[in-house]
Amino acid sequence: MTDTDQTTLQTLISSIRPVDQAAMNAARERQAQLTKPAGALGQLEDLSVRLAGVFGSDRPHPRGVAVIVAAGDHGVVQEGVSAYPPEVTAAMVANFTAQTTSGPGGAAVNAIARTVGAKVYVADVGVNAELPTHPSLEAVKVRMGTRNLRHEHAMTADETLQALLAGSELAGRAIAEGADLLIPGEMGIGNTTPASAITARMLGATVESVTGRGTGVDDATLERKREVISDALARQGSTPADPLGVLTDLGGLEIAFMLGVMLRAASERRAIVLDGFVEGSAALVGVALAPPLREYLFPAGECAETGHASQLAHLNLTPMFNLGLRLGEGTGGVLAAPLLLSAAATLREMQTFAEASVPDQA
Amino acid sequence: MTDTDQTTLQTLISSIRPVDQAAMNAARERQAQLTKPAGALGQLEDLSVRLAGVFGSDRPHPRGVAVIVAAGDHGVVQEGVSAYPPEVTAAMVANFTAQTTSGPGGAAVNAIARTVGAKVYVADVGVNAELPTHPSLEAVKVRMGTRNLRHEHAMTADETLQALLAGSELAGRAIAEGADLLIPGEMGIGNTTPASAITARMLGATVESVTGRGTGVDDATLERKREVISDALARQGSTPADPLGVLTDLGGLEIAFMLGVMLRAASERRAIVLDGFVEGSAALVGVALAPPLREYLFPAGECAETGHASQLAHLNLTPMFNLGLRLGEGTGGVLAAPLLLSAAATLREMQTFAEASVPDQA
Repeated sequence: MTDTDQTTLQTLISSIRPVDQAAMNAARERQAQLTKPAGALGQLEDLSVRLAGVFGSDRPHPRGVAVIVAAGDHGVVQEGVSAYPPEVTAAMVANFTAQTTSGPGGAAVNAIARTVGAKVYVADVGVNAELPTHPSLEAVKVRMGTRNLRHEHAMTADETLQALLAGSELAGRAIAEGADLLIPGEMGIGNTTPASAITARMLGATVESVTGRGTGVDDATLERKREVISDALARQGSTPADPLGVLTDLGGLEIAFMLGVMLRAASERRAIVLDGFVEGSAALVGVALAPPLREYLFPAGECAETGHASQLAHLNLTPMFNLGLRLGEGTGGVLAAPLLLSAAATLREMQTFAEASVPDQA
Repeated sequence: MTDTDQTTLQTLISSIRPVDQAAMNAARERQAQLTKPAGALGQLEDLSVRLAGVFGSDRPHPRGVAVIVAAGDHGVVQEGVSAYPPEVTAAMVANFTAQTTSGPGGAAVNAIARTVGAKVYVADVGVNAELPTHPSLEAVKVRMGTRNLRHEHAMTADETLQALLAGSELAGRAIAEGADLLIPGEMGIGNTTPASAITARMLGATVESVTGRGTGVDDATLERKREVISDALARQGSTPADPLGVLTDLGGLEIAFMLGVMLRAASERRAIVLDGFVEGSAALVGVALAPPLREYLFPAGECAETGHASQLAHLNLTPMFNLGLRLGEGTGGVLAAPLLLSAAATLREMQTFAEASVPDQA
C-alpha cells in the first residue's frame, strides 16, 4: 500500500459532506405547495426531498443512470457454500458483455438497463480466470479471487485498498460520462458468504439472522455456510471500529470495489441506488467509514436474502418495493431508477397551486 | 340508449378472450432457462409470464405506454364528503394540459409520464364546467357531473353506457397510436365516495372497511362520508349480478369511462396497469361483466386508501410496490410501467444458460 493510495482514500472519505439541509427544507416547502393533496405522493415525496439534499437544489435534476457491475471470486467456495460452480462468475462476465440480437449483454441487468435507459459498466476486479480483453470490460483485477475466509484473511489491506480505488476510479469515469444515479452491482459465486460475515460483524448480529440461501442452496449447504461464517468470525478479529479491517478479513474484492463506487459517488454528490444484500454489506462498511454516506443511499427493493432487512434497519433506510428479488447484478437498483427520477421530476416539474390557479384545501 | 350502443358493448365484452395459456407455459419454461438462479427475479418472473399470456408470445414486447386520465364531477360533493372544493376538478384538467416550462402539463402524472416516456391523454367525461377547447383535451362530456347518489341514481343507464363507450373509443385510439400498456387514471373531487360505495356493494363489504380519507378528510368528514355511502347503499338496489346497474346507481362518469378503457384494452389484448382505489372500483365492475378481464390487469402499487387491499384480494392480484401513494391521476400506474416493461425485457432479451454457455446449477 503506497502512501499516495492511503492519501487518496483519506481524501475521498473526507470529501463526503453532509447533504444540503437548506435545499431539503426548500424542497419540503415546495412539495407542500404542489398541485396534489399534502402527502399524496407518499414515499416519493420523502425521496424527492432527499434527492434535493444530494443535488443541492429544491428542483433536483438527475439525468444519467449507470450500473457498475463488479465481478470477483471467492476462495471460500472450496467449502461448498454455493449452489453454483465458481466458473459461473467468469461465464456471467462474458454474458454481461456478449453481443446478442437485443444489444450488448444477455443478463438480467442488461435487459433491464436497456429498458430504463441505464448505462452498464462491467469490471473484473477479482475473477479467478484470465478473461479475454473486451472493450466493454474494465480489467482492474486485483487478485484471482479472495483467499478462503474460513482459514485466513480473505484479502490483504493493500488488496482491499486497490479494489476500493478501482471502484472509485470507475465511478468517477461514469460520473464524468453523465451518471447522476450510480448503482453498484455485483457478480461473484459465493459472495453472500462474505456479505453475511461482514453483516454479522458490523451489526453484532447472530450468524443465523443474517445468513440466507444466496442463489438457492439447500438446507445442508445453508447449515455448512453458517458454520463456515461462524468459524471465520471466530478466527478473524477486526471489529466495527476498523471497518476496512473487517472488509479485509472477510472479503471480497467486488465488495471493496462497490464500496469505492459508493464513496466516490457520495464525494461527487451523486445519488447511490442501493441494490441487494451484498451491496448492503459494502454500505455498512462505508457508512462506518464515512457516516454522511448514509444520506446518499437510496435502497431499491427489500431483497429476499435473509439479513437484508437488518442491514436497512441499521442504516435507517426504507426500500422502495418488495418484488422478492435475490439476483444481484444491480438489477433491483436499475428497476428503482425510474422511481427516483420520477420523484425528482415531481419536485422539479409540477406546478404549485398558485402557478396552476388550483384552489387549495377548502 | 340505442340498440347500436348496446350491441357495441356486448361485442366489446364478448371479444375479451382468456389470455394465451400456451404462451404462458412457454414463458415459464423459458424463465427457468435464463441466466439467473431459478426464481431470483421474484415477482418480475410472474409478471413476465402474465405479459406473455396477454401478448401471446413467450417473448412479449410491449412498447408504448399511455395513461388516460378521465375527469368528472360528483353531485355527492353537496354532502360535504371531500376536503377540496369541486372547482378543483376543472382546475386540475387545465393543469393536465397547461403549457409549462417543462413541457405540457403541470400535474404529478405529467411529470412522471415525461420521466418514463408515457403518453398522456386527458378526457373530460363529466366535469361540471364548460371547459375551453384544447387540442390535448378530449371533449367527451356526458353530463355536468353525476347526480347525488345519496338521494338518486348517480347516472342513467344511458349515461353509463355513453361514458363507457367514450373510454373504449379513446383507448382504441391510444392503441392505434402505439399503446401496449394502458393506464386508466382519474381526476374527480369526491370520487372516492362512489368508489367506496361500488366496492362495498360489489364485495359485500362493510362501508367502514372500504371507506377512507380520500384526499385527506378529517374525522368528522370521514364519518359523514360513511353515512352518505350507507344511505346510498340503502336506497339503491342494484346487486353485483347487475354490475352496470351498480355503477349506474352509484356513479361516476369517469369510473364508467375507465371501465371502457379497461374493456377495450383487454379486447385488443393489451395490458392494463391498474392504479389506485377509484380505478379498482371500475375493475371490480369490469371483472364482474367480463371475467377474463382480470388476467389483463397488473396492479401498480397498494395505495394508501382504505379498501384498496380488499379490492386486490377480491381480484386475487398482487401489487408491485407500496409507496403509500394516494393521488390518483394514474400516477402509480405510470410509475409501475418501467417495472412491467423490464419484466417483459428479461423474458425477451436475456440469454439462456445454453446460449450464454453458463454452467447451470452444479
